[in-house]
Amino acid sequence: MPPIDAKTKVCAVLGHPVGHSLSPELHNAAFEALGLPYVYVAHDVEPGKVSEVLEGIRAMGYRGLSVTIPHKVEAMHAVDQVDPTAQGIGCINTVVNDDGRLLGYNSDGLGAISALRNAGADPQGKKVLVLGSGGAARAIVVTLAREAPPEQLTILGVKMDELKTLVDDAQNQGAQNQGAQSQASIVGGQFTPLSLQDEMAKAEILLHCSPVGMHPNENSSLVPPEMLHGEITVFDVVYNPRRTKLLQDAHTAGCRTIEGIEMFLGQAIVQFELWTGAKAPAEVMRQVVEAKL
Amino acid sequence: MPPIDAKTKVCAVLGHPVGHSLSPELHNAAFEALGLPYVYVAHDVEPGKVSEVLEGIRAMGYRGLSVTIPHKVEAMHAVDQVDPTAQGIGCINTVVNDDGRLLGYNSDGLGAISALRNAGADPQGKKVLVLGSGGAARAIVVTLAREAPPEQLTILGVKMDELKTLVDDAQNQGAQNQGAQSQASIVGGQFTPLSLQDEMAKAEILLHCSPVGMHPNENSSLVPPEMLHGEITVFDVVYNPRRTKLLQDAHTAGCRTIEGIEMFLGQAIVQFELWTGAKAPAEVMRQVVEAKL
Repeated sequence: MPPIDAKTKVCAVLGHPVGHSLSPELHNAAFEALGLPYVYVAHDVEPGKVSEVLEGIRAMGYRGLSVTIPHKVEAMHAVDQVDPTAQGIGCINTVVNDDGRLLGYNSDGLGAISALRNAGADPQGKKVLVLGSGGAARAIVVTLAREAPPEQLTILGVKMDELKTLVDDAQNQGAQNQGAQSQASIVGGQFTPLSLQDEMAKAEILLHCSPVGMHPNENSSLVPPEMLHGEITVFDVVYNPRRTKLLQDAHTAGCRTIEGIEMFLGQAIVQFELWTGAKAPAEVMRQVVEAKL
Repeated sequence: MPPIDAKTKVCAVLGHPVGHSLSPELHNAAFEALGLPYVYVAHDVEPGKVSEVLEGIRAMGYRGLSVTIPHKVEAMHAVDQVDPTAQGIGCINTVVNDDGRLLGYNSDGLGAISALRNAGADPQGKKVLVLGSGGAARAIVVTLAREAPPEQLTILGVKMDELKTLVDDAQNQGAQNQGAQSQASIVGGQFTPLSLQDEMAKAEILLHCSPVGMHPNENSSLVPPEMLHGEITVFDVVYNPRRTKLLQDAHTAGCRTIEGIEMFLGQAIVQFELWTGAKAPAEVMRQVVEAKL
């Protein structure tokens, strides 16, 4: 980026803790690559303080924010307007300050969709299986239903209340998006070895959104290797480790695989483009993330 | 400075307008020279919004602020604690965030004192003449009375109410500072050619704090050249142009001269040291200012 002067636009990530966030290095490298007069910093904000922070940011003329754990819901309630997809998800991870008006977005699901598309596996019109019903699954499922409706979207989970809410919300989102050519058939079911086997046999894309396989339990996977077949694209949102056991097994079975960092990169690219209006330098951003992980 | 990451400490200037402030380049160059993990940005804040901004800054964990026109008084009322010198001046230009507690300081007068000392003209114990009773004069006179009491401190002005208040406040400040070895004799008087001539004959240091001689009225000076004598040090707080008519005349008369940018630099050095605890790289900072003016 050019030297920081009194005209430099400011963006930041709000989190707690935030000291290990890669977002400042990622976005600053991207600003620099394009020569844009922006800088991106990190603020460690205690829960309960988000609305004060957003009032400050409005008055200070910040251009935008990333919002991460644990502030995504609190921030949604503090902005002036929430994008319909983010409203469906129930939280935001992005704020754009449009001349004092704070607009909330959620780029997590869009990040997953663009990761799929970049890998040549557009989910639209496909049979998609999601494992898990927590935050990552919610962002992806709701965004898929609205923005890139699969032919069939099946979610298997273990928390049946959470799962039912997610299916209902995704169905509503799909129905609300008048512009969509088609609407996904969305069903939820209890995760069991048998239900998994049935759904895996039909699925074209598998989105693993549970924490299984995450450091320090790197030798676990929800999916027995024998269920993996070469016609399926496997996307694991777990990014630590980068090559989870699921992705290793999928690679062995001849599947196309997509790592969790692609979702992180994808959501950051959407944010960057919302703040700057410029096309994000994806390769520069990828290099920063790969150098750090 | 090192690459900006999630642990980088943030400082900023608040002003309105703020787009021409040199402070970001000045402080960022200083952070970089010492390899300190800090970054300094600028925020254009509308009057009336300062307390919201300070609440935000507390919650975001900013390390410190510069506060400039028109926010210096409003900011004083919004911080948690005001340094006694700043209280005497009646406004702050610096905030230090001490773990969520916002401390207000005024480094303008200290900047002027260190400019004098750097030029070999310590005002303590000297006969000092100040022209003007506005904001710059207030900061300098009150700080002198408290921190470096001259033997005689005379202020000539044209706004007699403002002048009387300043003299009273400076006398109070001098009396309150228990640690001072000596106390200045402080008097105010109406600015006339005759009073100026009398005071100039006695003065060892002249501090010009009126706007006379500032761009675009570069050919004006309050002091007739024949009143300037070689035993006087002349400090002009006007910094645009750098060499005012007063300073040119003083140079011709064989006086030691000090430019207004020395006060700007001096106050920035005090701020830098309050935020970082490190000794400011004065030469680096001077180069930034000289390159820009």
